[in-house]
Amino acid sequence: MKERLYLYDTTLRDGQQTQGVQFSVAEKVKIAQALDRIGVDYIEGGWPGANPTDSDFFEARPETRATFTAFGMTKRAGRSAANDEVLAGVMNAKTPAVCLVGKTHDYHVSTALGITLEENLESISASVAHMVSEGREALFDAEHFFDGFKANPGYALSCARAAYEAGARWIVLCDTNGGTLPAEISAIVAEVISAGIPGERLGIHCHDDTGMAVACSLAAVDAGVRQIQGTLNGLGERCGNANLTALIPTLLLKEPYRSRFDTGVPEAELAGITRLSRKLDDILNRVPLRSAPYVGASAFTHKAGLHASAILKDPATYEHIPPETVGNTRQIPMSNQAGQSNLRARLADMGLDITKGDERLGQILDEIKRREDHGYAYDGAQASFELVARRALGELPRYFKVERYRVVIERRHNGREMANSSEAVVVLEVGGERMLSVSESWDNEGYDQGPVNALWQALAKDLGPYQCHIEDMKLVDFRVRITGGGTAAVTRVVIDSEDGNGNRWSTVGVNANLVDASFEALLEAIQWKFLRDGVRPL
Amino acid sequence: MKERLYLYDTTLRDGQQTQGVQFSVAEKVKIAQALDRIGVDYIEGGWPGANPTDSDFFEARPETRATFTAFGMTKRAGRSAANDEVLAGVMNAKTPAVCLVGKTHDYHVSTALGITLEENLESISASVAHMVSEGREALFDAEHFFDGFKANPGYALSCARAAYEAGARWIVLCDTNGGTLPAEISAIVAEVISAGIPGERLGIHCHDDTGMAVACSLAAVDAGVRQIQGTLNGLGERCGNANLTALIPTLLLKEPYRSRFDTGVPEAELAGITRLSRKLDDILNRVPLRSAPYVGASAFTHKAGLHASAILKDPATYEHIPPETVGNTRQIPMSNQAGQSNLRARLADMGLDITKGDERLGQILDEIKRREDHGYAYDGAQASFELVARRALGELPRYFKVERYRVVIERRHNGREMANSSEAVVVLEVGGERMLSVSESWDNEGYDQGPVNALWQALAKDLGPYQCHIEDMKLVDFRVRITGGGTAAVTRVVIDSEDGNGNRWSTVGVNANLVDASFEALLEAIQWKFLRDGVRPL
Repeated sequence: MKERLYLYDTTLRDGQQTQGVQFSVAEKVKIAQALDRIGVDYIEGGWPGANPTDSDFFEARPETRATFTAFGMTKRAGRSAANDEVLAGVMNAKTPAVCLVGKTHDYHVSTALGITLEENLESISASVAHMVSEGREALFDAEHFFDGFKANPGYALSCARAAYEAGARWIVLCDTNGGTLPAEISAIVAEVISAGIPGERLGIHCHDDTGMAVACSLAAVDAGVRQIQGTLNGLGERCGNANLTALIPTLLLKEPYRSRFDTGVPEAELAGITRLSRKLDDILNRVPLRSAPYVGASAFTHKAGLHASAILKDPATYEHIPPETVGNTRQIPMSNQAGQSNLRARLADMGLDITKGDERLGQILDEIKRREDHGYAYDGAQASFELVARRALGELPRYFKVERYRVVIERRHNGREMANSSEAVVVLEVGGERMLSVSESWDNEGYDQGPVNALWQALAKDLGPYQCHIEDMKLVDFRVRITGGGTAAVTRVVIDSEDGNGNRWSTVGVNANLVDASFEALLEAIQWKFLRDGVRPL
Repeated sequence: MKERLYLYDTTLRDGQQTQGVQFSVAEKVKIAQALDRIGVDYIEGGWPGANPTDSDFFEARPETRATFTAFGMTKRAGRSAANDEVLAGVMNAKTPAVCLVGKTHDYHVSTALGITLEENLESISASVAHMVSEGREALFDAEHFFDGFKANPGYALSCARAAYEAGARWIVLCDTNGGTLPAEISAIVAEVISAGIPGERLGIHCHDDTGMAVACSLAAVDAGVRQIQGTLNGLGERCGNANLTALIPTLLLKEPYRSRFDTGVPEAELAGITRLSRKLDDILNRVPLRSAPYVGASAFTHKAGLHASAILKDPATYEHIPPETVGNTRQIPMSNQAGQSNLRARLADMGLDITKGDERLGQILDEIKRREDHGYAYDGAQASFELVARRALGELPRYFKVERYRVVIERRHNGREMANSSEAVVVLEVGGERMLSVSESWDNEGYDQGPVNALWQALAKDLGPYQCHIEDMKLVDFRVRITGGGTAAVTRVVIDSEDGNGNRWSTVGVNANLVDASFEALLEAIQWKFLRDGVRPL
């Protein structure tokens, strides 16, 4: 019989403390729905009353299987819980559960609150009891618990006990400043349990200030707590909170957790976690972290030549779990470290079976090497790699030809202001016919979006009979790297494109002229899509 | 008496397995020098013979206090160590230490190598013994040690023992696939030690596939190993290696490590670690991770209102260590009070003494904040910062005015080839006179060097009476970063300029249009030089 381990998500509250993150109500709704789908037990929606967006969100919150929770603070000293306007604001959100943060470190009680230790205990008891009497499930976030315990264990424990005795379902031990190491977390949790608060009433809330929030959370579980608080992608104040996107796969896939615990996340939903992680980044317009555990684009990328050759025989040789378990995919990128086995694996993925020892393998590697020496980089641009390989194998159809292009970039007076404009003309030959397109680049507010945007608009304007294949395509990211120094340096541009189904591919262009490098990457992005879609050349 | 704990850096070898990372020889030299300064004990430079860049680097490697190490693989079965060309390649790098990776998981010996378990033991023994007989310090990287130990503990141990008995200074236990959790690492290390290999001969090499490489490394130290392998900023294959940038501050600042161990990192160097981390990102043109433990820009940023007000009373209330210990800085986004004294110090450096409480200090901070929200970054562009401050103080002379510019970029047939050209026209008003300059951008071989180069040539062609002040100026570096996503993203360009005496300064420009962003940075570079030279405006 497995024990139940509960997951408490605070992406919408502590996650919003991330520098640069500010959710709209609509974004919070989307994230709450996605969290509910994966199967967390609690969704903390924000602090109603403290923040107008949070109050609006509780009005608009979706129906969820997960227990919706409002965050707030224990009442002020010197007034009753029923008369405290902060508590009233939290109550008014009408959530089934309420999580109240309170002080447990004696120094903070005196310094930050300026009240006596006794008054603080009364605030905790009375606030929790009030929530319970109103029919809410009450959680108590024991702020600075670990630092408090080290300074004054008796007082920290009496705060936790006050919440427990007042009826709190969960007493959550918070490492608010994030500086406590796993062994210490584990030892202090054990002391709390032996002092009489059972593990099935304890939660853990860690921050990543030493890079160990995930390990600290598991250390607390090992010591007996049965609730973990964390956020998607490890968002949160300072270095972030414990990363649920890393914790969930570990809990479901790794021993001893897999055999010992049930969570609310069904095993079938685990394959949705990579998509969930990327979706959050998409909502926040953040570039996904390639190296993220389990869900990062590099998490199953095998760059070392020795690794790649073994992967061909058996993926388990260099993978701790099969990537599909978490909805991720294996990648064997090209780089000048790679050998022929790496290359054969890549070609096989592209549907090209080239036998071992085929001399064209050497030719492709030489061509890649020659281009890498010139500034190209293919381990982040697999689509361009495929085009190089197919070109070398004589398997690349020619869809159209670029006759010429011209971009004019101007800055000049426009009435009283200085204004930029970019205009691009592209001349293509498509199936024997010349297609001449011109485009400016303005966004909806009339601002110039630059020469690359103008070129893309002109290219995508009229591809004749191919036009239907480009219409669902858009550019989603654009990276520039200068290799070498000075303005005469070589520029490498990598462009990420996306089709109507959300599939992405990356292409690379290199030139001293950064506009021409971009143009090369744009052309390759189109060519690759045509290939992938099986478009027949005219 | 403290014990010695050794740090082994593999940024230049395993770090190069990061997707998208490819160091040049010059970059490797710069990184090795920086690593030596912070005080790591070993610098692994790469795999000579396997990669031309790595071989070149060992020829060019700097003199270091740290022990330089070449990486390689144990010899093939069926030939002697002295006749193995891979080992010979490693020997030829002439480093004082050599680290050889070898199999310790029985399954890999049979599957990947296709040899007997005995043959593999002989390869380990003979390879290590050969290195020792050649006077090298030998390290053995026990690949897949933890997975191997779980599958066949006796065989994994006999591999480690073979290296130990052949004279390896270090047997490094590698969690190659990154899937082992801290408790298991700790338990297996304890078994290795009780099997007779002392902890002071053991190292640990972890990967971050579950987000716990730092915790796993410390768990191994707790169990007795005395060497940690890791990389700066956690670069490395897949999710990366154990992050030395997080480990070093924890080892120096946190108990029990602080009292128990000495490392080669002097406490005074710890304040250089934030700069070291940023420098690596700068070399790689990566956007520094804001949430990185200790060194991230957000690591000491207090966004929550309650936190910020307590921080004003006592920073220790919400900080696990003082940020200056690691060379980082506190940020309080909602209150610019903390920033004013910093700003006054910077203005004093520029020769501008502004008294405490002057309301213009707040105005400058607001302007900087507004521009940073828009994509500007002033940490790496001190000259542009100075221009912003002087503009806000009304102390920025106007030397000339840009009437307009136009750049035309073309790609078209030129005889049989396609060729690029860039042409720039710049119209300035200098001392009431209109100056019209036009320039193409060709290098000595007749290749187009792009629109920014053309603009610079046109700008520098005729500045009328100011011309003598621009003649010794040249552009020496040019960095482009896209902030946001898509081709409509904002581009930040940083330009480094140099005068005839070798003095350098950096300026920044931001625009959706990357040519215009570059133009802004070019203009500021000229303006700043005129200011510094005390040029009188006409």
